[in-house]
Amino acid sequence: MALGPVDTTRSPYARWKTIPLESFTLGEGFWAHKQDVNHRVSLHHGFEQLEKFGNFNNLLLAAGKGEGSYRTPVFMDSDVYKWLEAVAYQLAQGPDSSLSEKADYAIRLIQEAQAPDGYLNSYWQVVEPERRWADLQHGHELYCAGHLFQAAVAYHRATGDDRLLNVSRRFADYIDSVFGPGKRAGTPGHPEIEMALVELYRETGERRYLDLACYFVDQRGRGLLGGHRLGSPAYYQDHVPVREATTVEGHAVRQLYLTAGVTDIYLETGEQALFDALLRQWHDMVSRKLFITGGVGSQHAGEAFGEPYELPNERCYCETCAQIASIMWNWRMLLATGEARYADLMERTLYNGFLSGVSLDGRRYFYVNPLLSHGQEPWMGRKHIVRPEWHGCACCPPNVMRMLSAIGHYFASADESGVQIHQYAAGTLNLPTLRLRLETEYPWQGAVHLTVEEAAGHEQSLSLRIPGWCTAPSLQVNGADAPASRADGYWTVTRVWQAGDQLHLSLPMAPTLVAGHPRVDATRGSVAIQRGPLVYCLEQADHDPAVDLHDVAIEPDAPLQASWRGDLLEGVMVVQTQGKLLDPKPWGDALYRPLAESQTPVRSPVALTAVPYYAWANRGPGVMRVWIPRAG
Amino acid sequence: MALGPVDTTRSPYARWKTIPLESFTLGEGFWAHKQDVNHRVSLHHGFEQLEKFGNFNNLLLAAGKGEGSYRTPVFMDSDVYKWLEAVAYQLAQGPDSSLSEKADYAIRLIQEAQAPDGYLNSYWQVVEPERRWADLQHGHELYCAGHLFQAAVAYHRATGDDRLLNVSRRFADYIDSVFGPGKRAGTPGHPEIEMALVELYRETGERRYLDLACYFVDQRGRGLLGGHRLGSPAYYQDHVPVREATTVEGHAVRQLYLTAGVTDIYLETGEQALFDALLRQWHDMVSRKLFITGGVGSQHAGEAFGEPYELPNERCYCETCAQIASIMWNWRMLLATGEARYADLMERTLYNGFLSGVSLDGRRYFYVNPLLSHGQEPWMGRKHIVRPEWHGCACCPPNVMRMLSAIGHYFASADESGVQIHQYAAGTLNLPTLRLRLETEYPWQGAVHLTVEEAAGHEQSLSLRIPGWCTAPSLQVNGADAPASRADGYWTVTRVWQAGDQLHLSLPMAPTLVAGHPRVDATRGSVAIQRGPLVYCLEQADHDPAVDLHDVAIEPDAPLQASWRGDLLEGVMVVQTQGKLLDPKPWGDALYRPLAESQTPVRSPVALTAVPYYAWANRGPGVMRVWIPRAG
Repeated sequence: MALGPVDTTRSPYARWKTIPLESFTLGEGFWAHKQDVNHRVSLHHGFEQLEKFGNFNNLLLAAGKGEGSYRTPVFMDSDVYKWLEAVAYQLAQGPDSSLSEKADYAIRLIQEAQAPDGYLNSYWQVVEPERRWADLQHGHELYCAGHLFQAAVAYHRATGDDRLLNVSRRFADYIDSVFGPGKRAGTPGHPEIEMALVELYRETGERRYLDLACYFVDQRGRGLLGGHRLGSPAYYQDHVPVREATTVEGHAVRQLYLTAGVTDIYLETGEQALFDALLRQWHDMVSRKLFITGGVGSQHAGEAFGEPYELPNERCYCETCAQIASIMWNWRMLLATGEARYADLMERTLYNGFLSGVSLDGRRYFYVNPLLSHGQEPWMGRKHIVRPEWHGCACCPPNVMRMLSAIGHYFASADESGVQIHQYAAGTLNLPTLRLRLETEYPWQGAVHLTVEEAAGHEQSLSLRIPGWCTAPSLQVNGADAPASRADGYWTVTRVWQAGDQLHLSLPMAPTLVAGHPRVDATRGSVAIQRGPLVYCLEQADHDPAVDLHDVAIEPDAPLQASWRGDLLEGVMVVQTQGKLLDPKPWGDALYRPLAESQTPVRSPVALTAVPYYAWANRGPGVMRVWIPRAG
Repeated sequence: MALGPVDTTRSPYARWKTIPLESFTLGEGFWAHKQDVNHRVSLHHGFEQLEKFGNFNNLLLAAGKGEGSYRTPVFMDSDVYKWLEAVAYQLAQGPDSSLSEKADYAIRLIQEAQAPDGYLNSYWQVVEPERRWADLQHGHELYCAGHLFQAAVAYHRATGDDRLLNVSRRFADYIDSVFGPGKRAGTPGHPEIEMALVELYRETGERRYLDLACYFVDQRGRGLLGGHRLGSPAYYQDHVPVREATTVEGHAVRQLYLTAGVTDIYLETGEQALFDALLRQWHDMVSRKLFITGGVGSQHAGEAFGEPYELPNERCYCETCAQIASIMWNWRMLLATGEARYADLMERTLYNGFLSGVSLDGRRYFYVNPLLSHGQEPWMGRKHIVRPEWHGCACCPPNVMRMLSAIGHYFASADESGVQIHQYAAGTLNLPTLRLRLETEYPWQGAVHLTVEEAAGHEQSLSLRIPGWCTAPSLQVNGADAPASRADGYWTVTRVWQAGDQLHLSLPMAPTLVAGHPRVDATRGSVAIQRGPLVYCLEQADHDPAVDLHDVAIEPDAPLQASWRGDLLEGVMVVQTQGKLLDPKPWGDALYRPLAESQTPVRSPVALTAVPYYAWANRGPGVMRVWIPRAG
C-alpha cells in the first residue's frame, strides 16, 4: 500500500493521518475522468515535452553524455522531477508498462547525472561548475533538490524502487554537510526543499533531514539572501523571520511552498510559535488576498501577493502553481487541525483556480488564470487566451500532473477513531477496518450516498465535511435523521458499522449570486455566480456575437436556472439567467463623465448563460468574465 | 528672446507657432510658485543628487579623470542632460549666477567626456568600450543622445552659448555616419532621440537631422531590436510599423516619447499616414487607457499601458515621466491641429498626475502615482507613500524640473492672425503686436481677467480655450457679451485691439462628482470629486483616525462645499461633503458572501474632506483614495 505525497501516519501533531493512495479508488465521475485524461494524455505528452525542451538532454550533459548546449532556465531539472512524481502516483494505482519505461529512462538519467560527491543539478554541473551555491537567491539548487526528494519518496512509496531515494539521500547528506549550524549559513531563494526534507525524513526516519528543514526555515528573514534582485526581501519571504510573519507576501508560490513546509515541520515538532505564524498568515490570505476562484497572486510584477483587497480581475496573476501550493498548504493545515475551513478552501481551489490551469483535453496549460479576459492580444505576448502546450518556464504543467495523479490522496483521512471524508467523489474507500462505497454526481449534484460494504466489529466514527457554501445540508443514516455530532465543519456519526449501513448526505446546490467585500474595487457593484463548489463565468462562445460581454449587466432578482448540458465542454451544468445589454455609445470617447450624465442606456434584455470557470478557454478566443455588473 | 522646448515658428504643418519663453511672464499665482520652488530648491537639490549618485563622476571617468567605479544604470548621463535643460529654461527667464556656474561645470564635463570621433556616452565609453551600439535594445545610447540634444538646444536658445550644441552636432553627425540607408540598420530601444533630432534640425537648419529622425521611426516594427528581453516587441513599440499602429502599447514613456517625436516629424513633413496613426493612438489612449488624473500606464510589469479599460486604482503605474511624455505629445498635437481637446488633456495631466510627482517642498519625487494608497508598506519596497529624495532610476526628478522651468511655454501660442491662450495663469503675455495682462486665481477660481496693455494697429484675433470640464463658460469684452466665434474648443475674438480693452472669461467651477466608464472595474459604483481642472482625493490626515477611509461611502446627493484653506498644503481649496462610515465587521474573514447577505451596515454618518490629488502624501503616511464608493 503506497502513501501519497504526505505521510502523517506517525506525525505526532497531526490530528488526522493520511491514507494510502490505493485506499481511495475513484469510480466513474468528475475526478476519475480528470485523472484518466491526465494518465492517458498529459503524462505522455509531458514526457515528449521534456524531451523536446531539452530537460532530459540537460541531465545527459551533466552525465557527460549529451550533445548540444544547455537549455535554461536553471530549474529545468525540477520539471523532470515533478513529472516523475506524477508518474509515481499513477503507478501506485495500477501498473502501466509504458509509463514505467519512461520513468525508468528518466531515473537512469538522474542517477548518471549525479556527481560523485552526491551533488546534483544539471545547470550548475554543466554551465557554472565552479559556482555551486554561489547564487542561493536565484540558483534554484535547493529548490530542484526538493522536487527530486519529493519524486524519490513518491516513487519509492509507489513501486518500492529505491534508486531515486538513494540518489536523494546521497544528495541530502551532501547538502547537510554543506549547510547548517557551524557550517555554511544560507536559505533557499525559492522554498520547496522544506516540505521535501520533512517528507524524506518521514520516509527514511533520518532525523537530520527534518533538522535541516528546520535550519533553512530558521535562516529566513536574516538577510542571508543578499541584494534581492527581484525587488524586495519580501519577494523571497526574507523580510521577516518565519515566526514573526503576520502576512503572506511576495512571490505567491514561494510563500505557499514555504508555509506548506513550515506546516510540515509543525506536524513533526508541534512548535506553537510556528503554528501561530501560520494561522496569522492564513487569515491574511483568506480575508484579504484570495480570489473567488481560490486563486492567489494579485500582481504580475513579482508573480506576487498584492496589497490587502487588491484583487484585480483581468490582471490578477493566480499562477496555476500558486493554487497547487495553496492546496498543499491547506491539506497540511487540515491534517494538523481537523477544521473544515481548510478543506473548504481546497475545494474552492481544486474546482476553480487549479482546474482552469489545464485544458479539457489535457494538452494545454495556463500559467496565469485571470477572472476577466478580453480575447486575443498577441501583441502583448499574453498567454491568457489560448493555453500553450508547454511554457518556457514550465513549472505549472507537471505540477498539474502530480496533483491530478494523486488527487484521491486529498479526499479522505483516518485516525484511531475512524475515517474523515473531505472531498466528495464517486469511488470506494477501502481501509482495514472499514470499506465504504460512495455514490455521487458531485460537483453537479449535491447528493452523496455512502454504503458500508465491510466494517470491523468495533465502534468507529465517520466524519463528513459540510461544505461552507451549503446552507441547508442534511444527513440521514439508514433512512433516519442522523444522531450526528457537528464540529469544526464535519458531521461525525459514531457507531459499530454493519455491512449494508447507508448514509445519505444532501448538499443542496442552488445557484447563488455572490458579492465581494466592500473594500474590493474589482468586484464592487458586481456579482459572481456560484453553484456548489463551482464558480461560473460568462464566455462569448455561449452568447450571440452581437452581445459584447463587456457591456452586459445581470438582473440580481431574476431566477437562476441550472440545467445539464451533456454536449457542452465534456458535460457541464450551465446556469442561465436574465440580464441587460448596455449601450455605452453615449460615452463616446469619454472615460469619465459627470455622475449626473453617466447613466448608460439599456439596448435590450439579454439571456445570460454561465459555464463553470474551470472550463473556460476551451472553445477559442473571446471575452470571459467571472464578475458581472449588477443592472440598475 | 529664447524659445522653449519646441520651436514651430517655421514648421510648415503647425497650425500654431510656439512663442519665446520670456513672452509669458508668470505673475504671482499657482504656477509661479511651483516654478519658484523648482528654481530655488529643486534645481540646486538636483545638482547635489547628481554629484552624490555619481552622474558627474561617470562623465569624469569617460574623460579619463574620475576616480572610483562607474555607477549604473546605463542611462545616468540623461539625468545630467535633463537637469541642464531645466536650468537652461530657468536661465532664459533671468540670470542666476549660481545656476550658471553649476551648469558650466556640467557642460565642461560633457565636453571633456566626448570621444574624439564625436561619440558620447559615459557608460559605453568607460565600461564596455568595445561594444558601442551592440545593445540597441537596452543600451540607451540613442536615448541619452536625444536628451543631450534637447539640453543643447535649450541651452543655446536660453544663453546663446553653443558649446553643448557643438558637442551635439558632432555626436549627431557621428550617429548619422553610423545609421541610415546603406549604413547600419537600427532603431532605439527607448525612443527619445526622434523629437530631439527634429528640434536639433529646427535649431540648426540641418536637414540630415530630420531625415535621421524619420529613419529611426521608419525602422520600427521590423524586428531590428531582436529578442525583446522585457517580454514582447510591444514593450519597445517594435511590434508594428509606426504608420500601422492603432493603439498605444507597452512601456508608456517609450510609447509617448515616440508619438511625440512622430508628431514633430509630422509638423515638418505633413505626412498624412503618420498623422492618421497618431490620431488612432490618441483615441485609444484617451478612450480606453487614461486615468482620471491624466496618468497613463496601468501595469507595473513593463511600466506599461494595459488592456482597454484596465485602470486599477492602487496598482496603476502612472509614472511621472509618462505624464510628462503625454504633455509633450499633446502639446505637439495641439500645435498641429488647434483643437482644444489636446490642451484639455494637458491641463488634466499638469494639475493632477504630473504635479503629484513632486512634493510641495520640491525635494521629493514619486516614480509611480497611484489613485489609491493603503499607507506604509516598507516590506514591499514600495515607494508610494513617501516620495523619495531621488531614485536609483532617476528619470523622473529632472524631468519634473524641465517641465516646471519651461511651464509657461505650454500656456500660449501665436500665429499670423493672433494669439492663443491654452492654460490660464496670472502673468503678462508680451508679443511684438500685443501685450496682455492676465489676472486670475486659477485653478482655485474660474475667473480670468485679461487687459490689453499694448496692441499693434491692425486686426488681431485672441483665442481663449474653453476647458472641457466647464459647462457654463461666458466671455465678456469690455463689459458686453463677446461677439466671439467658437470653434475647436476656443473662443476667438478678432478686432483691432486698443490698450485698455478688457476681457473677462468666466469658467464656473462647481465641485462635481464624476463617474467612470461602465467597462472600468476599478471605478464601478464609485465617484471621484473634481473641481475645475483639479481631481480631488480623500486623505487620512483630514479625517478622524477612527474613520478608516477604506470603509467610507459618499452620499451622491449631498451638497459639495468648496472652501479656501490658506493654512493647508500651501493653500488649497478643499471640498467637503457627507458620507457614511460602513461597518465591514459582519464580513468577518469572508471576502465573498451570498449577495443576499452582503449588505454592509452603516456605522455612522461621516463628514468627508477632499483635497487636490496633486497635494497628497505631503503629510506622512495614511490611506488616500481618489475613487469613493457611492452610498446606498
